Amino acid sequence: MRNRQVLLKSRPVGIPQAEHFEIVETPVPALRAGQVLVRNLYLSVEPAMRGWVNAAANYSDPVPVGAVMRSLAAGRIEASEHPDWKPGDLVCGMFGWQDYAAVDAASIGPATFGRRVTETDLPLSLSLGVLGLNGLTAYFGLLEVAGPKPGDTVVVSTAAGSVGSAVGQIAKLSGCRTVGIAGGPDKVRQCIETFGYDAAIDYKAGDLAQRLRDACPAGVDVYFDNTSGPISDAVMVQLAIGARVAICGTAAVANWDPIPAGPRIERHLLVKRARIQGFVIFDWTSRFPHALARLADWVRSGRLRYLEEVLEGIEQAPDAIAGLYRGENLGKRLIRIAS
Amino acid sequence: MRNRQVLLKSRPVGIPQAEHFEIVETPVPALRAGQVLVRNLYLSVEPAMRGWVNAAANYSDPVPVGAVMRSLAAGRIEASEHPDWKPGDLVCGMFGWQDYAAVDAASIGPATFGRRVTETDLPLSLSLGVLGLNGLTAYFGLLEVAGPKPGDTVVVSTAAGSVGSAVGQIAKLSGCRTVGIAGGPDKVRQCIETFGYDAAIDYKAGDLAQRLRDACPAGVDVYFDNTSGPISDAVMVQLAIGARVAICGTAAVANWDPIPAGPRIERHLLVKRARIQGFVIFDWTSRFPHALARLADWVRSGRLRYLEEVLEGIEQAPDAIAGLYRGENLGKRLIRIAS
Repeated sequence: MRNRQVLLKSRPVGIPQAEHFEIVETPVPALRAGQVLVRNLYLSVEPAMRGWVNAAANYSDPVPVGAVMRSLAAGRIEASEHPDWKPGDLVCGMFGWQDYAAVDAASIGPATFGRRVTETDLPLSLSLGVLGLNGLTAYFGLLEVAGPKPGDTVVVSTAAGSVGSAVGQIAKLSGCRTVGIAGGPDKVRQCIETFGYDAAIDYKAGDLAQRLRDACPAGVDVYFDNTSGPISDAVMVQLAIGARVAICGTAAVANWDPIPAGPRIERHLLVKRARIQGFVIFDWTSRFPHALARLADWVRSGRLRYLEEVLEGIEQAPDAIAGLYRGENLGKRLIRIAS
Repeated sequence: MRNRQVLLKSRPVGIPQAEHFEIVETPVPALRAGQVLVRNLYLSVEPAMRGWVNAAANYSDPVPVGAVMRSLAAGRIEASEHPDWKPGDLVCGMFGWQDYAAVDAASIGPATFGRRVTETDLPLSLSLGVLGLNGLTAYFGLLEVAGPKPGDTVVVSTAAGSVGSAVGQIAKLSGCRTVGIAGGPDKVRQCIETFGYDAAIDYKAGDLAQRLRDACPAGVDVYFDNTSGPISDAVMVQLAIGARVAICGTAAVANWDPIPAGPRIERHLLVKRARIQGFVIFDWTSRFPHALARLADWVRSGRLRYLEEVLEGIEQAPDAIAGLYRGENLGKRLIRIAS
């Protein structure tokens, strides 16, 4: 058995490109006591990975140059040196962009991003999307940070994305009116037809401010911000009194060093008694099981829909993050490396 | 009897200057049923008055050109056509920059900025400062919007001002460490000696970022923002994880039309899971009596100190707002027009 690994070859400034990675083959690692061997079946690709490889301040230390690219993955346990796990168990966690990972059982236990995948009636890949980081981000960011109330107008940027699409649907389940902002006619159509937004705006079609006014005549009560940049600037000036903004990501700003300038928002916040809050879902790990159970029920009943875009083969990994930022994906981007 | 009135003569752009006002004499108004006649003794001067005369969006319609300047004032009832009020009662409310105001009793009743002044053991002028808008703004902005926890490092801009000085002291009463930012050595000394800040920084003395790092080695947990602009920009990059920012005012930005640019804050908010919130105390009117009782007790016990700067005579009114923005006042600015 060989272990193909995608290593970070050099440190990018801004968005990581294919040239910043290389694929090598190494032996499958041996297990120490307390470890399990995971055979990865799906690798995840997410916007946050840009931050994981950049040197700027972030949630965690950057991936070292020469190390396996940090990533969520989902797979099957092939060997176990821990009593709680046995071969055949399904699992997801921070296993990296590689075929096989030897991981401490503690890293897939409570209060981690890893877990045993128990919803075996649903596709394993969902544990990397709507039943993983993306769904949990939508769930806690919307329900805990933004706090939607029935009748609120909720605006979501990257509205057809794997987080945004869940936000829009959970907002509908919360009794809100939903307005999605997405790039291009395909994603706008997805917003309406697949994800049930009440309105959708193509930010690439021009005059975003007027389109927003038309879609939100009473202003924006909740804004779930995945982008920062000009899209968010247009939303901020249309906040309603008492508005809540949840900052989930800053995908539209390629580089934060130095910090770019934008229109000041203090006066809007003051006059509208509005709130902006950044969040990271790791603050709610103890509530992940409850949230995942609700998300899975919504998926089963068809009230929470999702789209996946599955790339085939680990060879697709090096360019996969750059592709996200080119906006070419439709749905949660995954790489299938075995079946 | 004559009624001297300060009228808005023309609409300023930015900070109102003496030339934008004129003083006229008119007859004392006659009372209608349900009204009371207030003899103003103190007129208030506050930074928010800039917004009241500007055309830009704000909490209320701008003062019309030719009308009496809107203002809080404190005085004594001279005549009453309402059963709840009698001559000699002390009162504060939106009585305008004038000697006499005929006002509806409803405008000094519950859920207004007006009220009966019952703490007759304390100076009447306090109803325009630490026992008025300023104290209430500090109280609700700090305790309800920022939510200080014992041990938090709380940074206050315009720290020696009538709002900021109360914020710093209420934060100390809440078990926090307090750091004041003020302009010039006199105000910095006041912060330490009069208002009990643990540290005070003169933003005019240069290298604000380094001074902030020295004063807040573990970062800023709470920032009570009275200024916006470069002072706030320096604080924002030093927020601690879970920080809360209450936006109370934007005194350092002279003009919001067009909206000025500043460094984007979304990334700090995201990485630090921090919150920024604007507020207006009118959202807590039902709780004003309880808050005023607590503030008055703190004043009586010497735990909440204040400074007043009393200008003598209504002739001082036209230049009084501009003077605030020149930073020349030390303490809450008032105009005494009768005794």
